[in-house]
Amino acid sequence: MSEKRLQLSERQTADFEMIGIGGFAPLTGFQGSEDWRNVCGQMRTSDGEYWPIPITLATDFECEVGDVVELSSDEGKHLGRITVNEIFDRDVEVEAEQVYGTTDSEHPGVAAIYEEGNRCIAGPIEVDDLPDHEEAFMRRYLTPEESKKAFADRGWKKIVAFQTRNPIHRAHEYLTKAALETCDGLFIHPLIGKTKPGDIPADVRMKCYEVLMEDYYPEDRVILGVKPAKMHYAGPREAVLHAIIRRNYGATHFIVGRDHAGAGDYYGTYDAQLIFDDIDIDELGIEPLMFEHTFWCNECEGLASGKTCPHDSESHLFLSGTKVREMLGNGEMPPPEFSRPEVAQILIDAYREEDNAD
Amino acid sequence: MSEKRLQLSERQTADFEMIGIGGFAPLTGFQGSEDWRNVCGQMRTSDGEYWPIPITLATDFECEVGDVVELSSDEGKHLGRITVNEIFDRDVEVEAEQVYGTTDSEHPGVAAIYEEGNRCIAGPIEVDDLPDHEEAFMRRYLTPEESKKAFADRGWKKIVAFQTRNPIHRAHEYLTKAALETCDGLFIHPLIGKTKPGDIPADVRMKCYEVLMEDYYPEDRVILGVKPAKMHYAGPREAVLHAIIRRNYGATHFIVGRDHAGAGDYYGTYDAQLIFDDIDIDELGIEPLMFEHTFWCNECEGLASGKTCPHDSESHLFLSGTKVREMLGNGEMPPPEFSRPEVAQILIDAYREEDNAD
Repeated sequence: MSEKRLQLSERQTADFEMIGIGGFAPLTGFQGSEDWRNVCGQMRTSDGEYWPIPITLATDFECEVGDVVELSSDEGKHLGRITVNEIFDRDVEVEAEQVYGTTDSEHPGVAAIYEEGNRCIAGPIEVDDLPDHEEAFMRRYLTPEESKKAFADRGWKKIVAFQTRNPIHRAHEYLTKAALETCDGLFIHPLIGKTKPGDIPADVRMKCYEVLMEDYYPEDRVILGVKPAKMHYAGPREAVLHAIIRRNYGATHFIVGRDHAGAGDYYGTYDAQLIFDDIDIDELGIEPLMFEHTFWCNECEGLASGKTCPHDSESHLFLSGTKVREMLGNGEMPPPEFSRPEVAQILIDAYREEDNAD
Repeated sequence: MSEKRLQLSERQTADFEMIGIGGFAPLTGFQGSEDWRNVCGQMRTSDGEYWPIPITLATDFECEVGDVVELSSDEGKHLGRITVNEIFDRDVEVEAEQVYGTTDSEHPGVAAIYEEGNRCIAGPIEVDDLPDHEEAFMRRYLTPEESKKAFADRGWKKIVAFQTRNPIHRAHEYLTKAALETCDGLFIHPLIGKTKPGDIPADVRMKCYEVLMEDYYPEDRVILGVKPAKMHYAGPREAVLHAIIRRNYGATHFIVGRDHAGAGDYYGTYDAQLIFDDIDIDELGIEPLMFEHTFWCNECEGLASGKTCPHDSESHLFLSGTKVREMLGNGEMPPPEFSRPEVAQILIDAYREEDNAD
């Protein structure tokens, strides 16, 4: 019998890696129909544990239940195998509605599952090797086991994790530091998996994080890791997934900002915070820390939020994403109250290289 | 039989008020010998609840068990009565050693109990009236019942309380706001009872708090109350008392800074935080939020602490208490990074009035 081998997509490769390193615990494989139904409908696995977004392996690959299918990464690297214990059809429209709250194919997460289609193969995976990542990511690569050990070695008990898929400007630096003030340690944990067009690439972001680690975060209190997962842009559901992942990495607290993991106008500004009202935090195993919009205020002479600043919005430094991109694209530094000059310079250089590549 | 009437000291008047308004719950009267022994030795009442500092009524007043003794405030106002159910001798040296960790009579809290002496009368109190306070305090006066209602009316679930017996400079404003960022509301709750000579009087401090409420704290997120209790300067034990009191006022979180409730060099910088390591936080009913020393950093261009700032102390704005008093006494403004100009002006004016009164 010839070997059956399936090459995973970039998104599936990221899922394989997250399952394989324990980042998706309690998952040990790609989910089947019962899990899929429970996750979509009740945000729980068939074993009753919180799980907000199905992790399924959609493919037309010809195989049967009982087959062992060897798996390769999107770049062709051998990773391991799946023992197929179910082949089933999901309903991507139901998944879109229940998980993403919309069946609009313009939604980047919905578009992705529509493209994948309904047929899924499910089963436990075995890991021989992990996907490759660039050197800039690998020097910050920590498995959940490794990050837990790093926290324990430092004697940290209260660890707050910060998810990001953007450069860290001062508003975000502020909220990570405000959270750190009442914790023992901060785990900056950017996502380096697939994001949508227009998001700043992970390698550029890593340079921004590294310069902040060098100049603005104390190394005995802050650990920078990378999360090799893809974005779903599922808003509230994804905020829960992000929290569970950080619990698996050993964090006790997790920052949920406004419009967390959102895209466009699909979710209300605080939907990703409100979803935790209906979740048993002890059972979830990680406590969300909710933040509002943060900004520089000229009257406060400092960073603040609507919670901590009593002044009018006229006192607040506001630059739209479009405006910031325009400034950086023109090689112009945003004010230091908005962005550390070291970070702005990296972004300016990245825009310049992009232009030269055009 | 003629009425028995006892005039309480200023410290005892404060205890009567705190018991009477429910600020010292579960206490409903002055503690007896069994409570005293348990509190000193195990930090618990005889019913097994956490209680860190004995609340006793030491007096030479002639009475017998079964007597009802009418009580007046230190200013002669009728307050209510105690039904004497025990007359006993405490051992102030044991109390000093076990509660304050020192028998040194230079310690202001130890000096106070030494001066009170051993003989105590104990029993439940009945409240007819509360002690008088100045108008500046009364307009911010909230009983625990009232503060709980105020929090509920605003829909706050996560409320952080801040104890202070000092003016709020920017370092403390920063830590209250950092805590507020992850809570729904902030309860600024200065102690207005008896403090030690050299501490800034409560009426001057109130002016400082009011100007901050006016200009720097948002009124929909911050409530200013007053706590009519005395200071013990018992460091770690008093941090626990301060937390229990704020639990009684409806707070869910409590800020514990460095050298909380300390005096001189009697306690290690973080002793008042470490004591919570041995306390069951769920049983206590309020979660401490631990803060390190906070300061303005020229490199961070913002407020920070040793946890969040990686820069040398040369970059930090440091002014000793002596230096600040000297500046204010000379009518000189400390830098705006140290103190809000509005607060500094109030303190300058207070020093000036004090000079004129000499």
